[in-house]
Amino acid sequence: MIDLTLESARIIVATALETARTRGLKPLAVVVYDDRGSLKCVQVEDGASLRRAEIAMGKANGALALGLGSRAIHARAEAQPYFVAAVSHVVGAAALVPVPGGVLIRAADGRLLGAVGISGDTSDNDEICALAGIEAAGLVPETGA
Amino acid sequence: MIDLTLESARIIVATALETARTRGLKPLAVVVYDDRGSLKCVQVEDGASLRRAEIAMGKANGALALGLGSRAIHARAEAQPYFVAAVSHVVGAAALVPVPGGVLIRAADGRLLGAVGISGDTSDNDEICALAGIEAAGLVPETGA
Amino acid sequence: MIDLTLESARIIVATALETARTRGLKPLAVVVYDDRGSLKCVQVEDGASLRRAEIAMGKANGALALGLGSRAIHARAEAQPYFVAAVSHVVGAAALVPVPGGVLIRAADGRLLGAVGISGDTSDNDEICALAGIEAAGLVPETGA
Amino acid sequence: MIDLTLESARIIVATALETARTRGLKPLAVVVYDDRGSLKCVQVEDGASLRRAEIAMGKANGALALGLGSRAIHARAEAQPYFVAAVSHVVGAAALVPVPGGVLIRAADGRLLGAVGISGDTSDNDEICALAGIEAAGLVPETGA
Repeated sequence: MIDLTLESARIIVATALETARTRGLKPLAVVVYDDRGSLKCVQVEDGASLRRAEIAMGKANGALALGLGSRAIHARAEAQPYFVAAVSHVVGAAALVPVPGGVLIRAADGRLLGAVGISGDTSDNDEICALAGIEAAGLVPETGA
Repeated sequence: MIDLTLESARIIVATALETARTRGLKPLAVVVYDDRGSLKCVQVEDGASLRRAEIAMGKANGALALGLGSRAIHARAEAQPYFVAAVSHVVGAAALVPVPGGVLIRAADGRLLGAVGISGDTSDNDEICALAGIEAAGLVPETGA
Repeated sequence: MIDLTLESARIIVATALETARTRGLKPLAVVVYDDRGSLKCVQVEDGASLRRAEIAMGKANGALALGLGSRAIHARAEAQPYFVAAVSHVVGAAALVPVPGGVLIRAADGRLLGAVGISGDTSDNDEICALAGIEAAGLVPETGA
Repeated sequence: MIDLTLESARIIVATALETARTRGLKPLAVVVYDDRGSLKCVQVEDGASLRRAEIAMGKANGALALGLGSRAIHARAEAQPYFVAAVSHVVGAAALVPVPGGVLIRAADGRLLGAVGISGDTSDNDEICALAGIEAAGLVPETGA
């Protein structure tokens, strides 16, 4: 009940991409993880560059690794870049991309369900699409703002 | 036109999962890559184990790395396990999972478009779902049989 | 037809090295990748230092990963060094070297064909040789300027 | 004088590829390293699969790592697969692919100059092309037979 379902993840991805198309953004990669850090759903639009999905994964993985939306990790990177570099190293291949666009997904009661990562346009636009997706699924986003 | 579109990748994933549900298979992870080894589409069903998506990725990545459906890589692993272990190491994090269920996607003219990887049930059943998906998209599967 | 051929890659490398010799530059490493991030052609001049080829690879791989000439990635590194460090980590062994000299190769119609990476002299000189090579092959360079 | 020159490396690669075309082999990746393990020259034919160059690199790197042609490493892998797996791990990303086609390059006086790695056809055919290349450059191959 309280876990992130594939059905919810599909709604998040579909709405994020509709939002991107409505706004005329560049081609996006959208990834959704559950709270275990397991992939649930990914879609990458035609024309995205070679490693765009991995960057989106890094935003979402970083958010899960630290329990913070990637906007908060971005602030930490500005203040203490060595901390973020070290955490990247610790978490290994999953990595951590410390800019906005990695958004935690919470249930209405605050329980952590997973994270969305988006990359392709500006970090702020990536985050707007993540918010639209999470809200369309009736869930609560946490950007780290 | 000859590249793998997100639209085709969505059809592949949706049909693979419908096939799994019709047959009552265990929860699957289905991943689709384009010919660059860039992710296009992933869906992981509720109840799949923690790293099921990564196993599916390894099947598809291995197929692309060697240009062989993973059933052929499976045969090579039986004959020369050290070769397959070494190639896993060479391709790095993308790895290589040498059992059936990593199927190359070709256009009608033979051009390589990408690969599907599926994991969750038996390797043979995983492969059946990959075939159904690729055929539903009007494309040509290559299992390595 | 629209993919990067080995014949084009050879012209790019040969012309880049001729340009370097005409200008009296230091020994260069020149690498060419196709749009999948697969190596097509490499030549490293006598006297180049131990890991010069890997630096050239990092310039070209970074350009492909982000879809930007490495001069643009250089600007991003100046503004957000933690972002570039993080993407390096995400792309793994292929890495990313964020200074000029990683130049995207496009067809006349704008389609991405691959990337050149050059290292050995100043970044600006490395880039000049990449431009000369790409233009000699009748293709269109994108430096990120 | 006794180091491997780019000129020699070019002759090795060109002759290896001519040999492959004369024999009608599958598309090859040919890589040449100097004795420091620095890349000198790479060419990958059109139609090669995504990670073929990395497999060729693994053959040549393994030969240099152990000072043995990869045919000898292959024999060791048959006898002690755990030894070869462990060495792969020790040498890291450069890896080691323990099948024929990684051939040491020696000067007439026996001094080690570098290694060639070839992948794309059968391991035996890959090795034949490496031998042809090294001999065309007036150098001495060591296959590990």
